[in-house]
Amino acid sequence: MSKIRKTVAGFLLALFPAVSLAQTAPRDVPARSIPVPTDVSPQMAAIIGAPLRAEWNVLPKSGEEWRARADAGAVATAKIVDGMAERLHVKIESGVTDGVKVFTLTPDVIPPENQNRLLVHVHGGCYLLNPGKAGLVDAVLLAGFGHFKVLAADYRMPPDAYFPAALDDAMTVYKAAIKMTNPKNIGVFGMSAGGALTLEMMLRAKLEGLPMPAAIAPGTPMADATKVGDSFQTNELVDNVLVSRDGFCDAATVFYAHGHDLKDPLISPIYGDMHGFPPAILTTGTRDLLLSNTVRTHRKLREAGVEASLQVYDGQAHAEFARDDTAPENAEAFHEIAAFFDAHLGK
Amino acid sequence: MSKIRKTVAGFLLALFPAVSLAQTAPRDVPARSIPVPTDVSPQMAAIIGAPLRAEWNVLPKSGEEWRARADAGAVATAKIVDGMAERLHVKIESGVTDGVKVFTLTPDVIPPENQNRLLVHVHGGCYLLNPGKAGLVDAVLLAGFGHFKVLAADYRMPPDAYFPAALDDAMTVYKAAIKMTNPKNIGVFGMSAGGALTLEMMLRAKLEGLPMPAAIAPGTPMADATKVGDSFQTNELVDNVLVSRDGFCDAATVFYAHGHDLKDPLISPIYGDMHGFPPAILTTGTRDLLLSNTVRTHRKLREAGVEASLQVYDGQAHAEFARDDTAPENAEAFHEIAAFFDAHLGK
Repeated sequence: MSKIRKTVAGFLLALFPAVSLAQTAPRDVPARSIPVPTDVSPQMAAIIGAPLRAEWNVLPKSGEEWRARADAGAVATAKIVDGMAERLHVKIESGVTDGVKVFTLTPDVIPPENQNRLLVHVHGGCYLLNPGKAGLVDAVLLAGFGHFKVLAADYRMPPDAYFPAALDDAMTVYKAAIKMTNPKNIGVFGMSAGGALTLEMMLRAKLEGLPMPAAIAPGTPMADATKVGDSFQTNELVDNVLVSRDGFCDAATVFYAHGHDLKDPLISPIYGDMHGFPPAILTTGTRDLLLSNTVRTHRKLREAGVEASLQVYDGQAHAEFARDDTAPENAEAFHEIAAFFDAHLGK
Repeated sequence: MSKIRKTVAGFLLALFPAVSLAQTAPRDVPARSIPVPTDVSPQMAAIIGAPLRAEWNVLPKSGEEWRARADAGAVATAKIVDGMAERLHVKIESGVTDGVKVFTLTPDVIPPENQNRLLVHVHGGCYLLNPGKAGLVDAVLLAGFGHFKVLAADYRMPPDAYFPAALDDAMTVYKAAIKMTNPKNIGVFGMSAGGALTLEMMLRAKLEGLPMPAAIAPGTPMADATKVGDSFQTNELVDNVLVSRDGFCDAATVFYAHGHDLKDPLISPIYGDMHGFPPAILTTGTRDLLLSNTVRTHRKLREAGVEASLQVYDGQAHAEFARDDTAPENAEAFHEIAAFFDAHLGK
């Protein structure tokens, strides 16, 4: 036990004896200092050991402020995307599909089994961040490690457009994809808000009577925007990316919802009917604020009779499975997702 | 934020400003009060909301003290087992197989596909607890919900015998099982120390050139007795069953090891070679002190090319997937494990 923890535990006991002894239902946990895990790569140790995200609890007050913040973050992330694309030999081209901005990602080498396959990507960022190339981190990793062609939706975001604009644009791209490619050869993926959008797309496809893709990969999905789920509590201030349910990401989601009920399955897909969903692979980490969102989605899929595979990486916070192409844990995560698509997509 | 947490966070900031601002690699997390999750059944809420296990940090000093503690706990647990067996219509008979005490569990109804199948069970309890019937909680749940015959090893424990006695006895029972039943129709399962033993048995079977079973279900395995794994930190004092890596369970394991290297794969199977292992299903909860042990084992299996399925239940601490046959989450966990065995065992 760290010295700090012992000291604070002592304070707690001295100051709140009733709380320490009462044996009430909530769990009172003393302050602690949690070391960086020792069983991860140096790259992953740097990611996990990084301080809490700057300004995690500074919440923009207007669409313009949100936009400024998104644009500022996007510059740095786009550079990371370019570096990854170069190292992983993935070509990125921008375009427009039926009025929606898209990126096409093409790996230098596409093996024969992937020639007639296509992955549709929806990016993360709390429905407000990661415009343009900045949204492509996981798209590049899957194109590069999995050698798949990827069509990525650069959907509209506030203040330009609100719920359900992101989903509408993602569906436009999906509809274009199933015209180009047999849906049995298509996978859909994304992480965080992109993971939620992946699930929302399946709900919408069911509503519209569209064919399902062959498989989906909702990574650490924001499947419940209503703050339900135990890891919102247990991993608060442990996750260095999202940090807290009272941080920027939930605020951004509320901003996107624009007054719409957060329990609508098209914002919180955990409340939707997942019967008939295609096989799914879900990815998260033990420190992820959305660990519970992810495992609850996994259970919901299983309860609906859907083949669903859960991958959890030790020590990782939100979406840290997609941060650094040189981290062996990130390569492993995307090889795992690629293998799942390979097993389920037609050729 | 709870009042207590705010107050203690205030103390922390006032008393340790350097720690709050230093942005060093360890994560400093303030004290918090974690409510019982709202998305679980009333039965599970009672299990999760129960106080920390009594005497979790009172460590017996001798074999006799350990034995007294194990016997005291076993009386209450055996009654729970009897109640479960009655409700789930499972008959329990004690016996001896090649010198090792065993229990045979027979469900009232055995469907045709399970007539020629057999599950071998190794119980949990830190290699020291749950003698006799008290070790059968998960065995009854799987026999009852899955309608499988189960042969359970009531292996020797300290102070009667030390490492590798538990494993030796488990292997004796496994060898008897593969004489009675085609190994392709056999599954092996257990949780906690029983999950570790399940993995250790596969390592030993490889060493001895024995046929593998068709599938295994190591539930929240104590796969690393060296205290490596992030959830030993993040879930300390959050998990109300094991509570801490400095609690009774690690102490019991050290007592069983009896001076033997804890990093021996036959005590910490995470350090063993898992190539050639049969398909495995692993089960844990987000508050489990062994969450990291479980997900690290899952990854190790996947890296070895083994088909491995991970199930994580929201809010549950160590082995709370096997506590109450009337809790829908527990029924779900065992139906999931049963389905996995059904998919992999011959008939």
